[in-house]
Amino acid sequence: MASTLQSWIGGRWIGAEASAPLHSALNNALIYHTHAEKIDFDEAVTYARKTGVPALMKLDFQQRAARLKALALYLASRKEELYAISHLTGATRADSWVDIEGGTGTLFAYASMGSRELPSSNVLHEGPAMALGKNGGFSGTHILVPRGGLAVHINAFNFPIWGLLEKFAPSFLAAMPCIGKPASATSYLTEALVRMMNDSGLLPEGALQLVIGGTGDLLDRLGGADVVTFTGSADTAAKLRTNRNLIANSVPFTAEADSLNCAILAPDVTPDDVEFDLFVKEVAREMTGKAGQKCTAIRRIIVPENMVDAVGTRLRERLAKVSVGDPSVEGVRMGALASKDQQRDVAERVELLARGNEVLFSERDGFKLVGDGVANGSFFSPTLLLCRDGMRNDAVHDIEAFGPVSTIISYNGIDEALALAARGKGSLVSTLVTKEPAIAAYAVPMAAASHGRVLILDREASVDSTGHGSPLPQLKHGGPGRAGGGEELGGIRAVRHFLQRAAVQGSPTMLAAVTGEYVRGAKVQESEVHPFRRYFEDLKMGDSLLTHRRTVTEADIVNFGGVSGDYFYMHFDDIAAKDTQFGKRIAHGYFVLSAAAGLFVSPAPGPVLANYGLDNLRFIAPVAIGDTIRARLTCKRKVDRNRTDDKGVGQGVVAWDVQVTNQNDELVASYDILTLVMKRG
Amino acid sequence: MASTLQSWIGGRWIGAEASAPLHSALNNALIYHTHAEKIDFDEAVTYARKTGVPALMKLDFQQRAARLKALALYLASRKEELYAISHLTGATRADSWVDIEGGTGTLFAYASMGSRELPSSNVLHEGPAMALGKNGGFSGTHILVPRGGLAVHINAFNFPIWGLLEKFAPSFLAAMPCIGKPASATSYLTEALVRMMNDSGLLPEGALQLVIGGTGDLLDRLGGADVVTFTGSADTAAKLRTNRNLIANSVPFTAEADSLNCAILAPDVTPDDVEFDLFVKEVAREMTGKAGQKCTAIRRIIVPENMVDAVGTRLRERLAKVSVGDPSVEGVRMGALASKDQQRDVAERVELLARGNEVLFSERDGFKLVGDGVANGSFFSPTLLLCRDGMRNDAVHDIEAFGPVSTIISYNGIDEALALAARGKGSLVSTLVTKEPAIAAYAVPMAAASHGRVLILDREASVDSTGHGSPLPQLKHGGPGRAGGGEELGGIRAVRHFLQRAAVQGSPTMLAAVTGEYVRGAKVQESEVHPFRRYFEDLKMGDSLLTHRRTVTEADIVNFGGVSGDYFYMHFDDIAAKDTQFGKRIAHGYFVLSAAAGLFVSPAPGPVLANYGLDNLRFIAPVAIGDTIRARLTCKRKVDRNRTDDKGVGQGVVAWDVQVTNQNDELVASYDILTLVMKRG
Repeated sequence: MASTLQSWIGGRWIGAEASAPLHSALNNALIYHTHAEKIDFDEAVTYARKTGVPALMKLDFQQRAARLKALALYLASRKEELYAISHLTGATRADSWVDIEGGTGTLFAYASMGSRELPSSNVLHEGPAMALGKNGGFSGTHILVPRGGLAVHINAFNFPIWGLLEKFAPSFLAAMPCIGKPASATSYLTEALVRMMNDSGLLPEGALQLVIGGTGDLLDRLGGADVVTFTGSADTAAKLRTNRNLIANSVPFTAEADSLNCAILAPDVTPDDVEFDLFVKEVAREMTGKAGQKCTAIRRIIVPENMVDAVGTRLRERLAKVSVGDPSVEGVRMGALASKDQQRDVAERVELLARGNEVLFSERDGFKLVGDGVANGSFFSPTLLLCRDGMRNDAVHDIEAFGPVSTIISYNGIDEALALAARGKGSLVSTLVTKEPAIAAYAVPMAAASHGRVLILDREASVDSTGHGSPLPQLKHGGPGRAGGGEELGGIRAVRHFLQRAAVQGSPTMLAAVTGEYVRGAKVQESEVHPFRRYFEDLKMGDSLLTHRRTVTEADIVNFGGVSGDYFYMHFDDIAAKDTQFGKRIAHGYFVLSAAAGLFVSPAPGPVLANYGLDNLRFIAPVAIGDTIRARLTCKRKVDRNRTDDKGVGQGVVAWDVQVTNQNDELVASYDILTLVMKRG
Repeated sequence: MASTLQSWIGGRWIGAEASAPLHSALNNALIYHTHAEKIDFDEAVTYARKTGVPALMKLDFQQRAARLKALALYLASRKEELYAISHLTGATRADSWVDIEGGTGTLFAYASMGSRELPSSNVLHEGPAMALGKNGGFSGTHILVPRGGLAVHINAFNFPIWGLLEKFAPSFLAAMPCIGKPASATSYLTEALVRMMNDSGLLPEGALQLVIGGTGDLLDRLGGADVVTFTGSADTAAKLRTNRNLIANSVPFTAEADSLNCAILAPDVTPDDVEFDLFVKEVAREMTGKAGQKCTAIRRIIVPENMVDAVGTRLRERLAKVSVGDPSVEGVRMGALASKDQQRDVAERVELLARGNEVLFSERDGFKLVGDGVANGSFFSPTLLLCRDGMRNDAVHDIEAFGPVSTIISYNGIDEALALAARGKGSLVSTLVTKEPAIAAYAVPMAAASHGRVLILDREASVDSTGHGSPLPQLKHGGPGRAGGGEELGGIRAVRHFLQRAAVQGSPTMLAAVTGEYVRGAKVQESEVHPFRRYFEDLKMGDSLLTHRRTVTEADIVNFGGVSGDYFYMHFDDIAAKDTQFGKRIAHGYFVLSAAAGLFVSPAPGPVLANYGLDNLRFIAPVAIGDTIRARLTCKRKVDRNRTDDKGVGQGVVAWDVQVTNQNDELVASYDILTLVMKRG
């Protein structure tokens, strides 16, 4: 008996009565039902706002990043349960790997990026602060803060796990409770994932809800603090995006929609080149992976006129070798489409594409299903078409057959290739296969105007290439125009999209208090204890040391040259130095830096464990023989990453603002130093 | 006779026949007509795409920044002509200053930020590039490129000059041709501006067009490469934003719409504080400046219950002193609303606001117009209301009377103040007046979730404060929710909004070619000439020097300690150093840096004029006594800012990638150095 899926709303599972039937992609057997019970979306939204937001805000960015990591580990430990269910969607093990381990991998990546790049608070300072007046009393900067609203994530059927997790990860970091709504056809896999996430005990209450079935009046209940993300068809995107309530409240709406991605074989590549093989392999892999049901799959194979036959022949050979059927059978390389609906839809679109174009490979080329009892599954033969006049044919640039279907389009000259690529009217990704950096330098910026991601493939890249079809957490996913205009992933950018940016103006003291980061000109605390002798917990932003002074002498320059080996004329050649803007020899910049360290370092062992880096060093004014310098060292920023060293001693990251001034209180050098500081306990 | 305004479309002025009449705000005299001729928007769009885009793309970011600066200087030289016309809009000299000099100031600011932060090419690298594989063959990064489309800027009536220029500046830098459409009521001033911009001869052909009157079918003709920005009412924004064509093509639509901005007097401020005066002055200034016709004006004055009377009294005193009338009369502090329509509209909204609220100040308090023949002008008395139950009154949070109208709302506790502020459902700006950094640290991040900008005002800030109502080019302008959800200005962010971001993946060599910036792992050119001896023009990205080696000795550490004065135990205390992670004394990081300079510096005078800074220094591995180091110096990035030094010698900015390695080819230190390099001629 097929079981009934449940929604997870308001902290409880809803659903007992069966509604729409869901079928296995492999044999069309009834496997699940959606539930008939209506969801109270007022309850869901209220629960997210009143329970989810406060629970998430009890953690800071660093703590949420740590939760993501723990969650990823937990899900990874139970991945085989997900593989078992994923099989029903028609996916091969390799297809499921992209969905399942791609999903947990995205959690790991966001955990790691969050830990590296976000503060241990809930205010992300997007500095630097800038002086806005002449008297030093008024500065401006930007902060990013949690929006206080919820995220509705509406997903497509093709990646039931990755689809949810790639949106959940950055919105969770941004302290947004999520309501996930998977496409019904494969929602049983998302339901299993959400049960597992609940089982983990790692999610703050209200951080995630799941909708099986339709979204009802959910979008009508959102406000300006909320966001909606959507992956699916452009038609549905257009309908949802113009929801009156979303428009009235300017609710941010991110869409990933239709995309006729392309791969371009550049004119410099011949069939004898390694790159030619790379091109053919990449295209064949993208056509058949996930049975072509990827938003990023290559739909248009853009090839020089004189290479069309060679590419066509090689692709046909490859496609003929792809065995299609039950992925649990050894050797099966391509599984089924997700449903009979999809099967029908793809067939219809292939028919439209075939009008006026040649069919180079299709089910007529000996298509035979592998496996028992799969005759009624949603399988589809790899299908390759050829369009010899891509500039005049609209269908190949407009009709997306969401299956193992692709069209070779011939071109004459790289500019025509780029014009053909742009006729997709905005795509998620394009691949350029070339040996020539000059071709890439010319073509990629042009392709970039209409593609969210561009992959350049050559023999050097091939050793590590993650492939045309794989969005990575570090890189932007989303394209302009037809592709929806959205931007997902792309590292911490994705988190920023779920936060609210505000400009903040005020005195440096106020800006420091708000951002948690020392701003030049803010009040500092001078103390009797050297700040380098304070443990992480005791150190406060603004703790400051004004050092003793040091007069720079000719001997210093001479000695520094001797130690460093740097005999640059500005420091050593009195004749040439007279012709410089300074008119005389000056001290080495690195001497000033080293002498400043000599002024502020506290020599004995102490809580400051290491100076591991330095940022934004600017030499503002020269230091000449006879000048007297001193340094001001101020605790700028503390980040508690909740880390310990090998011996279990806790430590935090502390950035220090350093200003080196001369006898006239003029700034001569300015920089930040980065240290690790031990915790007391 | 009233003259007929003209549109500037397709490189010619259109309009001879009079259509809608436009009247002086001061006396309602007929002063201009819009034109009756229909604009061919197909021509306008085609002209922007076919003529504007290529003309703009002939310049690079740096050259466009230089054009902006020249344009700003030109407009500044003719500003008095604009002031003369601005007077007809009802603006005082101070109001016009905001519009006219605020506008040219924005051009100056974008010229300067563009020159400082953008490359001398048309590809903006948003790095750093990241390795995406284990073998070093595959990396990823992001670039931002011109979209190849046009920008339609639809503006409000209140700032006919600033409104156009603040949108034009960043879109021009982004190589987008603009079509500006001012609100008809004051379009005569924008027309005068565009004539001046044309006269300057500085605009590439097709870079700017002007629409007087309606936009007809313009929006139906845009594609995914184009963008629309809108400033005006939320109703119009909603209508335009849901245009079928814009939705179908995911055309980015940025809106600045209604906003019920607030100012909060924090609970810590008493009438005896300087901050109390600052609060009252700021509110009064914002109520009466531009006769309250600013998107950013303070509509809600949020005040502790026990301060309501004090604030009310002080505001009434101030408002009573504001003389209203013809701004050309000495002493007049507030001019007219822009039109009779506005006058009616504000009156109606005041009536709605007055229901259930007290009127503390209005025309009944002795309102008397100053000047001759102004009886028929669009004047309106400053109007102050009081709402004692802001949590239950909707009108004060929903109804924006776009004139010198504001309501005091009482609160009880800072959380209620913040809740009241948030009831604006998203605003452009809020001001918090407080003496306490702790209050700011608590309140500002909460206010930031629903406000695009937050000004913190205290005595320290007041010396330089630019005020609640002034968007600055450096800071984001725009708020969430009701305010439209848009983001304008905010420094180079604004330029990025008009560019298209794409992720790029490939071998480091390919990424370097595409981004114009050396990427670690890319092929380099080793040459016989030391790269520091090459002039700017001759130097190529990737020119590289692998230095000779140097063995680090105990004497080096001793000598470096002696010169720098840095006797940190890690370098000098054999006992304590044994307990560190390294287990022994190691060399100073700054010694490694200095010795690396000694290895790669070319001592004699040469094209490299100065090392003015250093970025992203990381000490990756320790250098111990006996280790042997060397450095690789590679030309990373060249920026031609088209600058010369005092003596007229051209110079460019060159960033160098430095990798210091040890005898095992392990990276020990990694950084970029920044230099100025002389041009050959």
